[in-house]
Amino acid sequence: MAATALVAIDWGTSAARAWCLDGSGEIIARRDIALGVRHVRDGNFEAALAKLIDELPIGLAPRIGCGMIGSRQGWVEAPYVDCPASLTALSDHLTSVPLGSLAIVPGVATRDSAGLPDVMRGEETQLLGAVGPDESGVLAVLPGTHSKWARVEHGRVVDFTTFMTGELFAVLIDHSMLGRIAGHEPGQFSREAFSHGVARGLDEGELAHDLFGARTLALMGTLASEDVADWLSGLLIGREIRAARDWALRAGIDPSVVRIIGSDMLVERYEVALGDAGVLAERASHDAAALGLWRVASRAGMLQS
Amino acid sequence: MAATALVAIDWGTSAARAWCLDGSGEIIARRDIALGVRHVRDGNFEAALAKLIDELPIGLAPRIGCGMIGSRQGWVEAPYVDCPASLTALSDHLTSVPLGSLAIVPGVATRDSAGLPDVMRGEETQLLGAVGPDESGVLAVLPGTHSKWARVEHGRVVDFTTFMTGELFAVLIDHSMLGRIAGHEPGQFSREAFSHGVARGLDEGELAHDLFGARTLALMGTLASEDVADWLSGLLIGREIRAARDWALRAGIDPSVVRIIGSDMLVERYEVALGDAGVLAERASHDAAALGLWRVASRAGMLQS
Repeated sequence: MAATALVAIDWGTSAARAWCLDGSGEIIARRDIALGVRHVRDGNFEAALAKLIDELPIGLAPRIGCGMIGSRQGWVEAPYVDCPASLTALSDHLTSVPLGSLAIVPGVATRDSAGLPDVMRGEETQLLGAVGPDESGVLAVLPGTHSKWARVEHGRVVDFTTFMTGELFAVLIDHSMLGRIAGHEPGQFSREAFSHGVARGLDEGELAHDLFGARTLALMGTLASEDVADWLSGLLIGREIRAARDWALRAGIDPSVVRIIGSDMLVERYEVALGDAGVLAERASHDAAALGLWRVASRAGMLQS
Repeated sequence: MAATALVAIDWGTSAARAWCLDGSGEIIARRDIALGVRHVRDGNFEAALAKLIDELPIGLAPRIGCGMIGSRQGWVEAPYVDCPASLTALSDHLTSVPLGSLAIVPGVATRDSAGLPDVMRGEETQLLGAVGPDESGVLAVLPGTHSKWARVEHGRVVDFTTFMTGELFAVLIDHSMLGRIAGHEPGQFSREAFSHGVARGLDEGELAHDLFGARTLALMGTLASEDVADWLSGLLIGREIRAARDWALRAGIDPSVVRIIGSDMLVERYEVALGDAGVLAERASHDAAALGLWRVASRAGMLQS
């Protein structure tokens, strides 16, 4: 077995993923653990790190992490780098934790066309792992609680935009009248209801109005109560795709092909919705974060030879 | 004192308002009580009605009601009348409760340009009380949990559109990360933060993206945590105004003057936001529902002479 040249950690709010990679960026070993930043209640991140990697063949390899571990709620706050953010800019701005046991990749910040700030932490690393340094004009999406769309080229996150899609869905289903209509028993995935929602989302409309439509469709008997959640999910994802596509077009990027980064069931929903929108969806490697961390570490001269 | 010619009740989900009116539509007496449809848990609406009006000089006057009392959760379900809904159509479709102690005004239904159904119950009556039978081309708004905008002319609700603005604000503040940022201590109303939110709302943008902006503004220190709720409220109301104005323009209605129907603090926020949008806001009578019920009853020949 090749020696570990780097220990890479994608350390988020609710989970952590760790990898050992060799000098050429091949994954030697991996570990997923539900030890997110919010679980480290005593603030002892040094102990949490040990727990996270102690079963991996880490040797004396350097360690690098990305994600919410670098947020105000994390171990140490790593500053943001502005877009366009290159591999070099990220590797030039690594932050070290007090005893030096982990280098943390900075987050990335931007502003939208109206001046509203936007931020990411961890996604920049996944993006630079999912898109090769030689590729250009790539449009990528990271579905999630706070979905991110990004333009990536030549090893740089050129720009990005965030949508609160996943969190909106969750609070509406758990706490609004739409959830009361939908009932608490999630049914089987209804492809038809979902696609109807997507179609509405891809159309022009104001979200606060269209949301009320889910209730009215149910009231009118057009939408079965067990399908309300899928219609709503389709509406929110469809509207996100519509807005992101416009955003890409304004930047001169072709939005007919999108790279999806992620691994959960949500990715499958995005694939369906993108298909409905006539967009070709390419799925990135599940280990994009590991490769992104390896590329940043390599650029920083951290790799053990 | 003139004799009561009509007992009019606006009976909503969480509250009820009752009035005695004379033959010319003047209000003789009134009562507000927190006895909404959802409080009548035993389904004994006859007893609830007695409690609601027993202190009023009702005599033997006929009784008419509007609002959620005519919904599936109410006393009897009153059918919907389609837009354009005239005073005559409403008065022709009154539904009587089993023992005849109350006539209920139908709700009104429509479909938006993309075919999504929309409904109102109670607001149609307020609209036809707030807008005289001789007026034309009136654009009106009823701010609330589910805000309604309507085009009214010559005693007809020509069309309307609903926005889930108030409920969206509530679930986001109570249950999303925006509420955690905003904290649980509501501060004083910040006119400045609210107007910044309104400005963003009046601008083009996708809501799910702009909502995330509240978090980023707070993270960047641009928005104080105690002002997050006002910024968010401004964003939601501003975006509603933008969409409603476009909706009115598409129908050929001048959106530079808007009649506001309502009475709570929310109305003041809409007045500020409409002012920011360069729209002249006229406030309708607090008793619009009473006059609307009187007009429907009069058209139905119900008034006691």
